[in-house]
Amino acid sequence: MFDNKDQSRTSLSELGEFGLINHLTKDFAVKQSSTVKSIGDDAAVIDTKGKQLVISTDLLIEGVHFDLSFMPLKHLGYKSVMVNLSDIYAMNAEATQITVSIAVSNRFPLEALEELYAGIELACAIYNVDLVGGDTTSSTKGLLISVTALGLADADQITGRDGAKDGDLLVVSGDLGASYMGLQILEREKQVHKVNPNSQPDLEPYSYLIERQLKPEARRDIIDLLKKIEIKPTSMIDISDGLSSEIIHLCKNSKTGVRLYEDKIPLDPQMINVCEEFKIDSTTVALSGGEDYELLFTIAQTDYEKIKGNPNFTVIGHITPEGDGMNLITRANTSIPIVARGWNALSNETED
Amino acid sequence: MFDNKDQSRTSLSELGEFGLINHLTKDFAVKQSSTVKSIGDDAAVIDTKGKQLVISTDLLIEGVHFDLSFMPLKHLGYKSVMVNLSDIYAMNAEATQITVSIAVSNRFPLEALEELYAGIELACAIYNVDLVGGDTTSSTKGLLISVTALGLADADQITGRDGAKDGDLLVVSGDLGASYMGLQILEREKQVHKVNPNSQPDLEPYSYLIERQLKPEARRDIIDLLKKIEIKPTSMIDISDGLSSEIIHLCKNSKTGVRLYEDKIPLDPQMINVCEEFKIDSTTVALSGGEDYELLFTIAQTDYEKIKGNPNFTVIGHITPEGDGMNLITRANTSIPIVARGWNALSNETED
Repeated sequence: MFDNKDQSRTSLSELGEFGLINHLTKDFAVKQSSTVKSIGDDAAVIDTKGKQLVISTDLLIEGVHFDLSFMPLKHLGYKSVMVNLSDIYAMNAEATQITVSIAVSNRFPLEALEELYAGIELACAIYNVDLVGGDTTSSTKGLLISVTALGLADADQITGRDGAKDGDLLVVSGDLGASYMGLQILEREKQVHKVNPNSQPDLEPYSYLIERQLKPEARRDIIDLLKKIEIKPTSMIDISDGLSSEIIHLCKNSKTGVRLYEDKIPLDPQMINVCEEFKIDSTTVALSGGEDYELLFTIAQTDYEKIKGNPNFTVIGHITPEGDGMNLITRANTSIPIVARGWNALSNETED
Repeated sequence: MFDNKDQSRTSLSELGEFGLINHLTKDFAVKQSSTVKSIGDDAAVIDTKGKQLVISTDLLIEGVHFDLSFMPLKHLGYKSVMVNLSDIYAMNAEATQITVSIAVSNRFPLEALEELYAGIELACAIYNVDLVGGDTTSSTKGLLISVTALGLADADQITGRDGAKDGDLLVVSGDLGASYMGLQILEREKQVHKVNPNSQPDLEPYSYLIERQLKPEARRDIIDLLKKIEIKPTSMIDISDGLSSEIIHLCKNSKTGVRLYEDKIPLDPQMINVCEEFKIDSTTVALSGGEDYELLFTIAQTDYEKIKGNPNFTVIGHITPEGDGMNLITRANTSIPIVARGWNALSNETED
């Protein structure tokens, strides 16, 4: 589905800016009834029909957020959309529109941008989102993608980071840390390939991890499921920077503490195996790896019966009074403070 | 107002990403009653109160869209906002919120970003707009600013590019070409400065042109004025790429032709003088210079009495059937087709 071996090349300057936008977006169909005016005017127009609008934006930069030596452009387009939709779902809203701006250096031919937009289009189709605007410009170096996502929700359905209460359960969807280990695999293969360009890596044992890194999915299904089982989380956030960083956001905004249980953190068996292979602690990866795009939320204890036994959800802890602090209860039953580390700290540790 | 001689420097890494966002945005007050949730969650929340939402986005890249050797960061912040608000006003909407994402290389200290955000804050204060979100990341090279602007309007007040009718008058606000000539002055001074770093340029004769380039204003006053005199334009666009390019957009989208009269195009005397100094044709600059951020719109002939004699408006032509084409009627009374040229073509011509 994501393959394109066509090697023909068309220079961007043949099209000009407006020709380029038209060319890249001509097959994007309007799917949302709220989209009144899409690409082709000074601005897009959206009829919110009495709902509240939710808006989020992210910037992805070559060499900082992605490496085109192992990230296919179609995947990159898809992932750029996911990263933003994930923020909209984390507000318990329906994602409805996106704008996409790109800056490209002249080393990219038209066919490369077509691949990028094919990934964006696939994401829009699967998640029922309209591309309604953007900007296309040249850059002095590399590729840069700026996505803004819009969503709609009834005012009383929106979940912020600030609603967690003492006694609430801390719940996470899916499993954690796989995306980070997928990136480690890809970076290792890149180094091997540099030394021996003819090496044929067997990536099959790592397929889940690599998919989590290259083609993550935003958890719209979780939002739909929560609605179906009639749970409105008291607070919610998506996991982009790593579990510990997101827990700290929830607690600080809600003015609470938390007890997080190490043995409850959901890890995929493939992720555990690869952590052993890399001699890296799997809990550290789950806490600080990032790019999982799972949803982390709190629910009232009275809602526990509704999620009990559901494989989509794992209760990993509970909310405590602010004065009790934010603590990880380890497998050895000791309590250690949760600290935000994110990418930098983890990279340093890996290099130790 | 725009001076800051403080030379102290704080490294960005001392703050971290979240600390940086908090630090830069802590003094931004919420002004719009539609802003429900601002910076500090996965997404911002906006209550549109039954109005339609208008959204526009632009990307500004160092070395492509601005040159920090003569563009102070505070001006750059201000201009980044203006460029986007201009698109919202061109839809006949009220600008209400913006998001700002920046990518910076580590050559920028905190104080530089504070200057940038001081300009953004000033723009927000003057134009009554809330900063509600964004993303802050590192770049491998230079500074990059992505602004998305939101606006609200009653559905029946929105003006697109597609409503011009045969017989409508073509009207422009302000004067054209000054911003482009301001840029020529600044680039000339940069070259002089390279040769003789002690030269003290007298820029007083060029003050209007330089202000148009460094600190343009979006024409919210024109939108207010049109409402006051009870004119709803049949079509409207803002002039960012140059008059000819924007006229072509209006005509193509409206499926009309146009007759544009060279002798009616409003030019500032300072701009005419500098065009003579640079031996460049002032009409060419007005047609292709760009960055004027004036509004170009069409009105029904029956509305003519309402704008007659108003110094804010100049009637520069009229709409014709599509088959008659898009033509410039020169001072010598010959008719030549209007072609889009924009920056590139003009730069080439200047270099001839």
